[in-house]
Amino acid sequence: MSHLSTNLSFNYLSRRQLIQWGLTGLGIATGGVLIRNLTSDSLASVRIPKIEPDVTPLLNNPFNPMKILREFDYGTLKQENGVKIREFNVTANSSLLQLNSGVSFVSWNLNNRVPGPTFRVKEGERVRIIFHNEDGHSHSLHFHGIHPAEMDGIKPIRHGKKMVYEFTAEPYGVHLYHCHIAPVTRHISKGLYGMFIVDPPQPRPPADEMVMVMAGYDINNNQHNELYAFNGLPNYYRDHPISIYQNQLIRLYILNMIEFDPVSTFHIHGNMFNVYRTGRDTTPHEETDVITMGTGERHILEFSYPYPGKYMFHPHQDTLAELGCMGMFKVIPS
Amino acid sequence: MSHLSTNLSFNYLSRRQLIQWGLTGLGIATGGVLIRNLTSDSLASVRIPKIEPDVTPLLNNPFNPMKILREFDYGTLKQENGVKIREFNVTANSSLLQLNSGVSFVSWNLNNRVPGPTFRVKEGERVRIIFHNEDGHSHSLHFHGIHPAEMDGIKPIRHGKKMVYEFTAEPYGVHLYHCHIAPVTRHISKGLYGMFIVDPPQPRPPADEMVMVMAGYDINNNQHNELYAFNGLPNYYRDHPISIYQNQLIRLYILNMIEFDPVSTFHIHGNMFNVYRTGRDTTPHEETDVITMGTGERHILEFSYPYPGKYMFHPHQDTLAELGCMGMFKVIPS
Amino acid sequence: MSHLSTNLSFNYLSRRQLIQWGLTGLGIATGGVLIRNLTSDSLASVRIPKIEPDVTPLLNNPFNPMKILREFDYGTLKQENGVKIREFNVTANSSLLQLNSGVSFVSWNLNNRVPGPTFRVKEGERVRIIFHNEDGHSHSLHFHGIHPAEMDGIKPIRHGKKMVYEFTAEPYGVHLYHCHIAPVTRHISKGLYGMFIVDPPQPRPPADEMVMVMAGYDINNNQHNELYAFNGLPNYYRDHPISIYQNQLIRLYILNMIEFDPVSTFHIHGNMFNVYRTGRDTTPHEETDVITMGTGERHILEFSYPYPGKYMFHPHQDTLAELGCMGMFKVIPS
Repeated sequence: MSHLSTNLSFNYLSRRQLIQWGLTGLGIATGGVLIRNLTSDSLASVRIPKIEPDVTPLLNNPFNPMKILREFDYGTLKQENGVKIREFNVTANSSLLQLNSGVSFVSWNLNNRVPGPTFRVKEGERVRIIFHNEDGHSHSLHFHGIHPAEMDGIKPIRHGKKMVYEFTAEPYGVHLYHCHIAPVTRHISKGLYGMFIVDPPQPRPPADEMVMVMAGYDINNNQHNELYAFNGLPNYYRDHPISIYQNQLIRLYILNMIEFDPVSTFHIHGNMFNVYRTGRDTTPHEETDVITMGTGERHILEFSYPYPGKYMFHPHQDTLAELGCMGMFKVIPS
Repeated sequence: MSHLSTNLSFNYLSRRQLIQWGLTGLGIATGGVLIRNLTSDSLASVRIPKIEPDVTPLLNNPFNPMKILREFDYGTLKQENGVKIREFNVTANSSLLQLNSGVSFVSWNLNNRVPGPTFRVKEGERVRIIFHNEDGHSHSLHFHGIHPAEMDGIKPIRHGKKMVYEFTAEPYGVHLYHCHIAPVTRHISKGLYGMFIVDPPQPRPPADEMVMVMAGYDINNNQHNELYAFNGLPNYYRDHPISIYQNQLIRLYILNMIEFDPVSTFHIHGNMFNVYRTGRDTTPHEETDVITMGTGERHILEFSYPYPGKYMFHPHQDTLAELGCMGMFKVIPS
Repeated sequence: MSHLSTNLSFNYLSRRQLIQWGLTGLGIATGGVLIRNLTSDSLASVRIPKIEPDVTPLLNNPFNPMKILREFDYGTLKQENGVKIREFNVTANSSLLQLNSGVSFVSWNLNNRVPGPTFRVKEGERVRIIFHNEDGHSHSLHFHGIHPAEMDGIKPIRHGKKMVYEFTAEPYGVHLYHCHIAPVTRHISKGLYGMFIVDPPQPRPPADEMVMVMAGYDINNNQHNELYAFNGLPNYYRDHPISIYQNQLIRLYILNMIEFDPVSTFHIHGNMFNVYRTGRDTTPHEETDVITMGTGERHILEFSYPYPGKYMFHPHQDTLAELGCMGMFKVIPS
C-alpha cells in the first residue's frame, strides 16, 4: 500500500506538504513552484497541534480516527513515456470494528480503514488507482468527477482480482469514491467509501486542513442506522477532542456518506463557517453554522476560532448526534 | 386536447421550435425575433438523437416516458380583443399504470400521462388553462409562480366540471403545478402534477432540452413509497437509455415531486452539472454532481458529456435508486 | 421579565421601533442615528394591519401566536462602567398547551411561550441574558453565533438556579437559541427554543417584519411528531390568517426547529420570495417559492403580494402541512 504516513509531529504544514508533494523527486519544475508557494510567509503561520499521546490505540480497532483526520494519500508520482502519473494502491477487505464497548461490526473497507484513504491530486494530473479486491464479495470503485464511462467503476471486481482505474483528474473540488455494486446501500454502509480531493491549479491559502466523513452503521440489517460516526468510530472526537490553534484558519473537507437517512446537517458551536460548495469555487457561497447535506454531498468549510476552549460539532438533527455523530474541537490559545 | 406532438424525428431543435412557437401564425413580430435567434449559427449545432424504435410501447401503458422526456406543450396562441392568449386544455382522469411486470397502479392523471403535460410559455404571456375534470374525484390545478388568489387552484372542481385558470405568466423560471385537494399527499402521489416552464424574455442558449419529474408510488396506501420513477415508469430509462450526443449541451429541467420522503438527491455519473436554482437566473449558482431537493423543488441542470459511453443517473440515496429511480444516458460519439 | 409588549395597534412600524430601540433613554448618539433612519420617507410607507379582535385568546393557551408573530424583545439597554449592555431576562418553566380541541401537551418553555422570545440586538452590542430556571428539570440556553466556550450554554442549570450568559453579538444574521441538555431532541421538542436576530450595522430596508418558527410535537414520546405548528399552535394561522397589505415588503425571519424529521420545506402560494441565507447577506442568494431547511437552519425571506386575497403557506411536504403546519396570508388591498 502506497499511502503515506502523515508526519503529524511536524508543527508546520509547509514541511509536511513539501515532503508529500515532492516525494518521488520527479516533476522538479512544478515541484519548485509549489515549494515557493508553500514556504511563503503566510504559510509559516499554519500551526497544527501534535496528536496527544492518549489517542493512539482505541478498542483494538485497525485504524485511528485522529490519524485519518489529517492524513492525505498523495500516491506515488511516476513517469511513463514522458507522461506523469500519480499512482495509488487500494485494497478492499473485511475487518472487525469495535464501534463501542458493546457493539462490534464487520466492515467491508479499503486499506483497512473506514473511511478509505483520502486520495489527493491536482487538477489535470493523470491518476491511476490500482484496486485490489481481497474481500470475499465483489466490489468496485466508482469515482465522482469527470471521466470516461469505462472508468466509472460500476463493473464488479471479484475476490482476488484487480482493476486499474485511470483518468485525468477534473474538475478541481471535493469529490468522493465508493463501491457501486448492488445493493449499493449495503456496500456503502459497510464502509467502502472515501474522499477524493482534486486541488485547484492555484493552491488554496495555507490552512490546518482536515477531513471528516459522516457515516451510519446499520448494525442489524434493518435498513436503518443504529449508530453514526465521524471518520469511522462513534463518539471518537467527543472523547478525544481535536486540538486546533486559536485564530488558525481551519479548512474542513466534509462528506455526508450516511445511507438510509435522507440528509444530515452539520453544525459547529460558537462559530460560523464559510461554505465552498463541492469545493468548486475559491470564493464562498454562504456563511452559516448549519448546513444540510444529502448523501454524497461534500463541501469545504472554512473557519477559525477567535476564543480558546472546547466546542462541540455534530449534526443538528440531534437524533444522529445522540447516536455517535458527535465531536469536539479543543481550541488552544495562540 | 391541444398538446403538440413533438417532432422528435427532426435532427435539429431549431426547426421544431420554430414550428412550436410560430404555430398559429400570430405574433409575427415576436415570432420574427425568435426565429432570428433560433436560426443563429450556435443553434445549428444542437443535435438530438432520434428515438430508437424499441422504446415505443411498454407494458400497455398509456404513455411513453421517452416521448414525455422532450415533449413541451406550447398550447394554442389565440387573439382576443387585441390580447394574445396562450391556451391549454388539460383533462383529469384515472388510468391503470403497469409499473413493472408484477405491479399495477390506478393513477389519477392529466392528459392520460404521469407526469402531466409540460406547459411552456414565455414570461409576460397571458396564459389560459382549461381544466376538465373527468375523474370520479374532485381535483384542481394549483400553479406555482405569481398569480391572483382566485387563480390559485385550491378550490375543488367536481367530476364533469371544468375550470378556467387564467393569469399572466411570471416570473420566468421552472415552476410546477399539481392538484391541491386534501389530502394533498394522496392527490399528488396518485399522479396529478406536471412541470410549468416560463421562458425568460431573452431565450436561453440552444441546447438539447429535456424534462425529468421524480415521483414515488405508494402502492399499498401506507404513506410510504414502494416504487419510484423518473417520468412515470420505474426503471424505464435504465432499460431504455436516453441517447444524447457527445459535447452537446444538455439542459435538464428537473422536479422533485416525491411525497412521503422528505427530500431526494439527484446525481449523474462521470460528469458535473451547473445548477440554475428554480431556473430563476441565467448564470449558474453552483457546479456539482449531487443536488438535494425538497418536495416541490425544481431546477435547471446543464452539462455536456466529453466522453462517449453509458452513464447512470439516479438519486444518491441508493434506497430510492434501487426501487426504480434509476436511468442511463447513452452518449453517442459526435 | 423584560420583554416588551409589542404595540401592534400602531399602524406604522416607525413609531413602534422608535420606542423599542430608544426605550431606556441611553445611547443618545446611536439612538439619534437610528431615529433618522427610521423616520425616513421610505419607512413611512411600512404599513402593518391591526390584529383582528377575534384572535386574542385561544383555547386558554398562555400565549397568542398572532402576538408572537411580530413581537421582538429588545431587552433593556444598561450602562455599566461606560459599557453599554443590552440585558434580557428569560425564565424556563412548564405549562400546559392545548394543541387542538382534543390534544393537550406539557411544554417546557421560556417566558411562558413556544417559541421563546425573539431576542433582537445589533451586531457588536454587548448582550447579557439572565436565564432563570424555574422548571423541575435542568436546562440551558445555547446560542448560535460567535462567542467564547464558557458562554456556549451546554452546562445544565438546575431548578431554581440562574445563569448569566454574556457575549458580544456577532455576526449579524438570523440565529437561534435552544436548550442543549441531553437528550437534546427531547429538550428542544418540548419547546425550549427561540430566535436570536442580530441586526446589521446598516439597518435593512423598512418592511413589515415577522417571525415564524416551525416545530413538531412528539405527543406520545415515540421519537416521531404527531403534530406540527408555526409559532406554537397547530393550524393557528390557517384559522386566523395573517393580515398584510398588498405591495408591502414583508420580511419573514424563518427557523426550522422540527426535531425527528430530517428537513422541512417552506412554500408560499401565488408568489416567490428572495432568500437571504442565515440572514448573512444584504443581497439575496436566490429567488424561489420552495426552500428546504434542515433542523437549525434559518433564513430571511422577502416578498410582497401584488394581488389581494388569501394565500396559503406551508411546508411542501404535505404530510407536515396536513398535521398542523399550515397558515394563510390575507392580503388587504392597498
